[in-house]
Amino acid sequence: MSRHPPGTVHGVGLGPGAADLMSVRADRLVRAARHVAYFRKAGRPGRARRLVEGMLRPDAVEFAMDYPVTTEIPVGPAYNDCLSRFYARCTDHLARLALTGEDVVVLCEGDPFFYGSFMHLHARLLGQVPVQVVPGITGMSGAWTASGVPITWGEDVLTVATATLPEDELTRRIADTDALVVMKIGRHLPKLRRAVLAAGRGDNAWLVEYAAMPEQRVRRLAEVGDEAPYFSILLIHGQGRRP
Amino acid sequence: MSRHPPGTVHGVGLGPGAADLMSVRADRLVRAARHVAYFRKAGRPGRARRLVEGMLRPDAVEFAMDYPVTTEIPVGPAYNDCLSRFYARCTDHLARLALTGEDVVVLCEGDPFFYGSFMHLHARLLGQVPVQVVPGITGMSGAWTASGVPITWGEDVLTVATATLPEDELTRRIADTDALVVMKIGRHLPKLRRAVLAAGRGDNAWLVEYAAMPEQRVRRLAEVGDEAPYFSILLIHGQGRRP
Ligand SMILES: C[S@@+](CC[C@H](N)C(=O)[O-])C[C@H]1O[C@@H](n2cnc3c(N)ncnc32)[C@H](O)[C@@H]1O
Ligand SMILES: C[S@@+](CC[C@H](N)C(=O)[O-])C[C@H]1O[C@@H](n2cnc3c(N)ncnc32)[C@H](O)[C@@H]1O
Repeated sequence: MSRHPPGTVHGVGLGPGAADLMSVRADRLVRAARHVAYFRKAGRPGRARRLVEGMLRPDAVEFAMDYPVTTEIPVGPAYNDCLSRFYARCTDHLARLALTGEDVVVLCEGDPFFYGSFMHLHARLLGQVPVQVVPGITGMSGAWTASGVPITWGEDVLTVATATLPEDELTRRIADTDALVVMKIGRHLPKLRRAVLAAGRGDNAWLVEYAAMPEQRVRRLAEVGDEAPYFSILLIHGQGRRP
Repeated sequence: MSRHPPGTVHGVGLGPGAADLMSVRADRLVRAARHVAYFRKAGRPGRARRLVEGMLRPDAVEFAMDYPVTTEIPVGPAYNDCLSRFYARCTDHLARLALTGEDVVVLCEGDPFFYGSFMHLHARLLGQVPVQVVPGITGMSGAWTASGVPITWGEDVLTVATATLPEDELTRRIADTDALVVMKIGRHLPKLRRAVLAAGRGDNAWLVEYAAMPEQRVRRLAEVGDEAPYFSILLIHGQGRRP
């Protein structure tokens, strides 16, 4: 058994992509961290890690959590099992570190509690070791800021959905909201476009790629081809009351 | 005519309430600002201004924009006219300052483009002087972080609405979403509670008051009386796929 009080696992929101859009609290935690963990696609540098380039202590110990599956296996029981075992392994490592008295900073894109992978660690760490979450500026805030137009006014209803939903469900949601944000687009873009058009909102839809990152690009949906990168968000701005 | 190039009006998101949840970019702009403007209820110190207490330059020039109406006039044409003239006056002052070459920082609660008052200045300033927006952590991110539970998983749909909507519309929206955020509650709490109950979601609704502020409080809706402060948000957390 450890003689130390346990360390804390911090899930730290880094914001949408520019280093100076990190919160002051996140900036301090990242710069002070002895242990830093982050998810990434196997073989890729990882966006969260790249965002803190140049900020880590020289003696920081890094723990890269490489996703075992991405789009190779269709979503289903096998995919879920594989991910579940992966999250359990990552949790074990982080909990063991914390039990030796070490704090760990887990780097999270955007806000950790908003469709974030950290939530899967958080749920497993609870009750084992202390966990703290630092909220962050979401990718969608980065996206509507990049578009130069406010997302919601007055009594506007905002719907946030993922492009992974079935087409008819997407169409229904898009037709029945004032303002819209769609996340997780990637290869679902053709389906999403059909849903936007079927809902009669084609003229007001924007695609924002890499919000707040060097590659940031804002275009009308009508100008976009059939592919969208992982970091892209579709927006329809609300038109609510504006005195 | 001015001989200077015009200054920039910066709409700066301060985040949900804790000073260290401001972004590094916001922190730098606030500390360097010679001109600082903020909205407040007449006679009140103003939350945005309080959040930057101790951060302003000693020679900072402050411009408090006191709302001429709040809840005294019912929302309608007279209310809109009054607000519209107020925003026009504020815009004139900021634009004049910028045209003399001065930068101005407008302090904004949360994220400026998410139901924020700054949007009314932004719309009027466009084309007159340069305007820049710094996104911020929203009040709702502060609220779900305070609740200790993630808001959206997997394919969850998140609906954001304001409690000012009619009761039947609220009920319909609450019944037809996975995750829910309701803003602008105040005196609409009894109506909002009826809508939550009619939608069959009473057991899963939480009220977060003053997220990330010293007075922060998180309670089940069932434990709350009939009043909620201006800074309060109702949450229902999503239950989506979690491998
Ligand atoms: C797993 S979710 C993580 C969301 C993140 N926790 C947040 O708060 O924004 C990944 C999705 O977020 C969106 N996203 C996050 N950051 C983005 C950015 N800077 N630009 C565009 N899209 C972004 C994309 O839609 C992407 O598919
Ligand atoms: C005019 S809107 C401004 C929203 C702000 N721009 C944002 O990004 O959160 C005001 C509403 O935001 C919500 N709000 C903002 N910050 C909050 C906080 N820290 N705690 C609770 N509610 C908050 C409340 O529902 C309030 O009625």
